[in-house]
Amino acid sequence: MSIQGVHLISGEDVSGQGSLRAINPSSGEILEPIFPEASSENIDVAVGAALSVHEERAAADPQKRAQLLEAAAERIDAIGSEITERGMQETGLPQARFEGERGRTCHQLRLFASVVREGLFQNPIIETALAQRQPLPRPDLRTRMQAIGPVAVFGASNFPLAFGIAGGDTASAWAAGCPVIAKGHPAHPGVCELVGRALQEAVRDVGLPAGMFSLLQGESFDVGTGLIKHPGIRAVAFTGSRAGGLSLWRLANGREVPIPVFAEMGSTNPVFILPAAMQQRGQQIAEGLAGSVRLGVGQFCTCPGVVVILSDENTASFKDELRQSLCDEPVGTMLHKGIHGGYENAVDQLSARNGVKVIARGPAGDDVCGVGASLLQVDFKNFIADPAMQGEVFGPATLLVECHSLEEINDVARALEGQLTATVHATEDEIAELSSLLHLLEDRVGRLVFNDFPTGVEVGESMQHGGPWPATTDSRWTSVGAAAIQRFLRPVCWQGFPDGALPEELRSGAVGMRRIDGAWQEFGNS
Amino acid sequence: MSIQGVHLISGEDVSGQGSLRAINPSSGEILEPIFPEASSENIDVAVGAALSVHEERAAADPQKRAQLLEAAAERIDAIGSEITERGMQETGLPQARFEGERGRTCHQLRLFASVVREGLFQNPIIETALAQRQPLPRPDLRTRMQAIGPVAVFGASNFPLAFGIAGGDTASAWAAGCPVIAKGHPAHPGVCELVGRALQEAVRDVGLPAGMFSLLQGESFDVGTGLIKHPGIRAVAFTGSRAGGLSLWRLANGREVPIPVFAEMGSTNPVFILPAAMQQRGQQIAEGLAGSVRLGVGQFCTCPGVVVILSDENTASFKDELRQSLCDEPVGTMLHKGIHGGYENAVDQLSARNGVKVIARGPAGDDVCGVGASLLQVDFKNFIADPAMQGEVFGPATLLVECHSLEEINDVARALEGQLTATVHATEDEIAELSSLLHLLEDRVGRLVFNDFPTGVEVGESMQHGGPWPATTDSRWTSVGAAAIQRFLRPVCWQGFPDGALPEELRSGAVGMRRIDGAWQEFGNS
Repeated sequence: MSIQGVHLISGEDVSGQGSLRAINPSSGEILEPIFPEASSENIDVAVGAALSVHEERAAADPQKRAQLLEAAAERIDAIGSEITERGMQETGLPQARFEGERGRTCHQLRLFASVVREGLFQNPIIETALAQRQPLPRPDLRTRMQAIGPVAVFGASNFPLAFGIAGGDTASAWAAGCPVIAKGHPAHPGVCELVGRALQEAVRDVGLPAGMFSLLQGESFDVGTGLIKHPGIRAVAFTGSRAGGLSLWRLANGREVPIPVFAEMGSTNPVFILPAAMQQRGQQIAEGLAGSVRLGVGQFCTCPGVVVILSDENTASFKDELRQSLCDEPVGTMLHKGIHGGYENAVDQLSARNGVKVIARGPAGDDVCGVGASLLQVDFKNFIADPAMQGEVFGPATLLVECHSLEEINDVARALEGQLTATVHATEDEIAELSSLLHLLEDRVGRLVFNDFPTGVEVGESMQHGGPWPATTDSRWTSVGAAAIQRFLRPVCWQGFPDGALPEELRSGAVGMRRIDGAWQEFGNS
Repeated sequence: MSIQGVHLISGEDVSGQGSLRAINPSSGEILEPIFPEASSENIDVAVGAALSVHEERAAADPQKRAQLLEAAAERIDAIGSEITERGMQETGLPQARFEGERGRTCHQLRLFASVVREGLFQNPIIETALAQRQPLPRPDLRTRMQAIGPVAVFGASNFPLAFGIAGGDTASAWAAGCPVIAKGHPAHPGVCELVGRALQEAVRDVGLPAGMFSLLQGESFDVGTGLIKHPGIRAVAFTGSRAGGLSLWRLANGREVPIPVFAEMGSTNPVFILPAAMQQRGQQIAEGLAGSVRLGVGQFCTCPGVVVILSDENTASFKDELRQSLCDEPVGTMLHKGIHGGYENAVDQLSARNGVKVIARGPAGDDVCGVGASLLQVDFKNFIADPAMQGEVFGPATLLVECHSLEEINDVARALEGQLTATVHATEDEIAELSSLLHLLEDRVGRLVFNDFPTGVEVGESMQHGGPWPATTDSRWTSVGAAAIQRFLRPVCWQGFPDGALPEELRSGAVGMRRIDGAWQEFGNS
């Protein structure tokens, strides 16, 4: 399969004007082909086709959607080596990482196929008619979750597959029954086209209407703006920078009919190390922390960018160990020049804040976008006084915040803005005394981690990835794991309808678990 | 119990400056006492106390919260006649209506007590550790819904009890574990104080911290603005006008940390009458419709304000019957002068739109705020061309939209903005052919009603009250029914914690249904 440099709009290759080309961040080489810039007409056609699919309930059959998700995984697996080859050129990520991420991507697609087959996401709640009730009869009421409509997906640069065109956002939107219009990421348009084509073919494989998926390429803000402002779009999923997420969120709220934006915008993922844990396992924690910061060249949304410690006689050796493990060797190649420059700049700016000392900045290596890790430190007072220190440094950097008492540690926790995660390293004796710290942290995160590291996000039923603002736009939802489907559903209640006019899943003969008159029951086959 | 004209702040009577007095809408009489205007210091104290309750997880015990809700119902029942007496003076609502609404209010409080006791709202999802998994072990992951924090409640004028200080918003927020700061409604401040005192006493009865509830009185926008902008507030519930809801929503989105606003802002609740149903039951539908429009003097959020019909030989007698049933007699007394003037003004404005004809405006009766019903009509083309006709007329008015084919009926449905409800009257033969109409309507409503009327909202598990923008700010939530609790919860994932450090409901010994490793299981008593 060769890359054509086109949009994929409702089953068709669509060419157009543009000048976007990918750049190899290791070598600086400019890659062919040129990709077009989506026009407002392209957007109209893609959204119009998606809206027709939605209005005709053409993807209402959950079995069909499960097949679609599985077909997508098969199609992606089938062109795996091609994706890896192009992906390594466009992103500088190593082969093993790309292949691992493809595995995760296909796992996610299949996970959502099983979520759709199980059907719990529809959450059918039925209250049967009580004709004799006094003072008034009760009508028959049946509520279930319904697809919200066409979803615009803006993929991430740091997970070109698992949070790209076929990533968790597309998989969960499709699972919910929503057509997807994906905006190609300008840093890896070739990967987007390859994966987009696999999705397009999966739609064809299972016989769903082509409007179920479109890919629009482009590098200007106009493409994203036009997409979000289109009245046919009902929700937006985005993974990227805070500036990018906020700008989409503002656009969506400025529409005549505002729509939800599920934006993952970054986090410093603070790690709290308590003194007894530091004494018992300081060296091990330092090594684990260094590994977590260096993972993916620090380009993970759960990278631990703040480490809160209590200064004592063990601090010096911990810092020493951390400095060596983190900074002695180059970390790797960043995804593109923008991110690379942004990282160097953010470390410079953080270094210049009041009270911040640079412990070490590691060697960057020879690649065009190669970087070293950065270890900085600051006293808790300066940290609390300066909210700018909480800005995410996207890359392999971490800031040690030194406290001198448990109270000061609580003060730091209280000053934190919303985060995806917070981590606590403590002994079991220590944790038993930390309920106020845990309560403060719980209010500020989506996930609390004990004696581990925040990177390495499980993709399952129990994962909660979203955290309070500004880590994400809405802490009530997750973009990772099975619950991500809930972002693209809303409840609709059907009152008094005859069986034949009800949606399939609310009919008396429907199979599966239903909540009926206050109890969970298995609906039989009719 | 006499009414003191005070705020109730975290267990204390707090007096202050102000000039607000209630006015009897039947007689025009000005009622004593004077109520104060909440200052920013009042707001600080109330929110600070609420935030302490939240941060200390002082209301974390679900049993305690169930007791609180039941105690509130008991306390309200105990002063029922006093509430009714003052309520009739402040609102002009008849005694039976006030007593019925008190019944509903206490039913809601007890419903949420049972929701809390059952515990399903916590939605605990557990994935146990897999130490041997390849390539990486899986940590122990436990997620459950956690209270979002202090909630600001702005009650409705049209349901002074069921959507007032102790209404569905307060009941569901408390059920979720959130402290409530209620803003008293300036049209019925005396009812607010009486009910607020019952809530304050219920908090004391069960031994929860006083910060669980505060009532702030006032008539200026500053009170509401100050409350919403306070960083300690985490969510807002509002029932009222579109202008009011949008203004709160904008304030909340303009905060440094935006918060969700659950605003119910009105709806025209279109009713579609298909020809065979019209032929079979035209007179009966006209009578039912007139009753639904007149109910509560048209001051219900589900009042049917638009009726879409297909012109044929049965139309004339239907209109005639509707005109008589709706308009011949005065409807009653509106809640206050603002609403009364707003209704007359809105009917005048609608009457002046292009193509609108007034069929009848009924007699208003003698009360200061007495009104008659209004019946208007317009051709479907004019209706579609003029979105202003979709503005809610708050009161007993309805606009007949005449179509000449099923296609035109679909065109009207497509042109509708978001609604709480849509209703279809049809025979079973007709409904079988209406899937495209039902799909269009489903996308625009929270509840679809068949061969019935939209007023008369059930308060149970299956109710979905919220509809798409602008009927509410967010169609994914409901303010009526058991699911209302979900508005005030967010998921938090606990990874790798020892049992003793977990929230009670995630510990191994917790009682109740849990989702464990992909299956629903009963956790045993330890």
